[in-house]
Amino acid sequence: MIPASLPRFQQRLEQQLQQLMQQGLPDTAVLEPAMSYSLLLGGKRIRPYLVYVTGQLLGARLEDLDAPAMAIEALHTYSLIHDDLPAMDDDDLRRGKATCHKAFNEATAILAGDALQALAFEILSQHPYQQVSSACQIKMVHALARAAGAAGMCAGQAIDLAQTNQQIDLNRLEQMHRLKTGALIECSVKMAYYCSPCQDPQVLAALLTYASALGLAFQVQDDILDIESDTATLGKPQGSDLKANKSTYPALLGLEGARQKAGQLYQDALAALDTVPGDTSELRAFAHYIIARTF
Amino acid sequence: MIPASLPRFQQRLEQQLQQLMQQGLPDTAVLEPAMSYSLLLGGKRIRPYLVYVTGQLLGARLEDLDAPAMAIEALHTYSLIHDDLPAMDDDDLRRGKATCHKAFNEATAILAGDALQALAFEILSQHPYQQVSSACQIKMVHALARAAGAAGMCAGQAIDLAQTNQQIDLNRLEQMHRLKTGALIECSVKMAYYCSPCQDPQVLAALLTYASALGLAFQVQDDILDIESDTATLGKPQGSDLKANKSTYPALLGLEGARQKAGQLYQDALAALDTVPGDTSELRAFAHYIIARTF
Repeated sequence: MIPASLPRFQQRLEQQLQQLMQQGLPDTAVLEPAMSYSLLLGGKRIRPYLVYVTGQLLGARLEDLDAPAMAIEALHTYSLIHDDLPAMDDDDLRRGKATCHKAFNEATAILAGDALQALAFEILSQHPYQQVSSACQIKMVHALARAAGAAGMCAGQAIDLAQTNQQIDLNRLEQMHRLKTGALIECSVKMAYYCSPCQDPQVLAALLTYASALGLAFQVQDDILDIESDTATLGKPQGSDLKANKSTYPALLGLEGARQKAGQLYQDALAALDTVPGDTSELRAFAHYIIARTF
Repeated sequence: MIPASLPRFQQRLEQQLQQLMQQGLPDTAVLEPAMSYSLLLGGKRIRPYLVYVTGQLLGARLEDLDAPAMAIEALHTYSLIHDDLPAMDDDDLRRGKATCHKAFNEATAILAGDALQALAFEILSQHPYQQVSSACQIKMVHALARAAGAAGMCAGQAIDLAQTNQQIDLNRLEQMHRLKTGALIECSVKMAYYCSPCQDPQVLAALLTYASALGLAFQVQDDILDIESDTATLGKPQGSDLKANKSTYPALLGLEGARQKAGQLYQDALAALDTVPGDTSELRAFAHYIIARTF
């Protein structure tokens, strides 16, 4: 069951990203083929979707949401490029295609990632917003920088690398995922909030609880799928986490325990939405889609 | 001849950076040793100095200038960490000490660099400014993102890597340096301008001309010093550019021609300051210091 608005927002994002990369920079376009290659490689666009659907729920303008939607995807894409590098997870495939350093080379992949991080902040700061104040723009920049850096995504990846070939406990595993993936997912709803006229911190808190549960559920499902799926449907070698000897939810909780954990997080996400005014059906459908996905 | 204000502003920046890194993040501090190691490795702090001295010339508050000064140095430090990586310039030494990937490891160096870029935008967006409006904060974010990314520094490094083992002409060499180094140096004065009450675009244009000439002169001198100095004073192996078979100003213009080029750029920098009101003596002294430096 795909949320009704998902294909529409996915399509909007693809168009926005294509337009962005086509603007190009004739003289200095050395990195853009690699940036475009990774940015336009597809994917579910979960984070931009959360920006759009949360923002519209809170009364933000669609045109204003394009900037945080593109920015969060540029940031996410850079993290994938760097995570795939030989010195990191050393992956050859991403979404069934050659990873950036395989399609180009390692130096280009590092620089394309670096440039995509800068691009995220460029997009956020130059968008012709209609109803977002400069003060709220700065809040978006701060939220993204914080989620991306040493107290967020980068710390999560560092913990992930450090735990390879080590047994870690459930708390540490959860902390790793909350930083590595959760931070950007929570940032998506936070930026949507700052784009909207809503100024109710309790609504923001509820949405962050939803996003946090959703992000973790996504990781638990990822661990489960890593065991269950085959390479063809997943786009990466089956059981690659086990091969890298990483701690996973199924390894720590058993497959059934991991499924229960995902189910509990799904309930947590739905419960958080109970206090959010307006029609939250798309966010609920999205949570179901994330937990039930078998792609 | 060192500009009188240089040691003072250098010291202020060191204190600010140390304070910043000491704030720390207990739970997730996995990357901070590597970030601190590189950020506090010293160096001339040219970019922060330009922020401080330009900002004060234009009437900005010293406390407001701390943020762009730290941000530009965090950004610059990340670029050095990534440039030193095996897949890039593969350098073991930086400022006479082990490069980040040698002192830690490659994955940590990549992530510490990534986190330092995010930190730059975090600093810019969370500083408790006294007289900088949100609109001007956003302009600083945009200037830094633009200078750092695919139309600036990252493009410059990509061109630099592509030109290894290739003969490039003077125009391409200049373009490479204007992107790789010039973009951040120009960004320093641009951010100082946005921190100040000055709203005269002609003053900004003159300062950018100054910064542009200064940045290029710095590179020409670097090429000259790379030939003349020995490893001990330079902190990196002598003639490393020649060894990497890269095009340089002395290679294209001869040593004497390169010296003349540096002298011309020095004159250009001074001439640009003629239209800037106020006491520009420190900026003039700084230009002389950059051109006349021996280390």
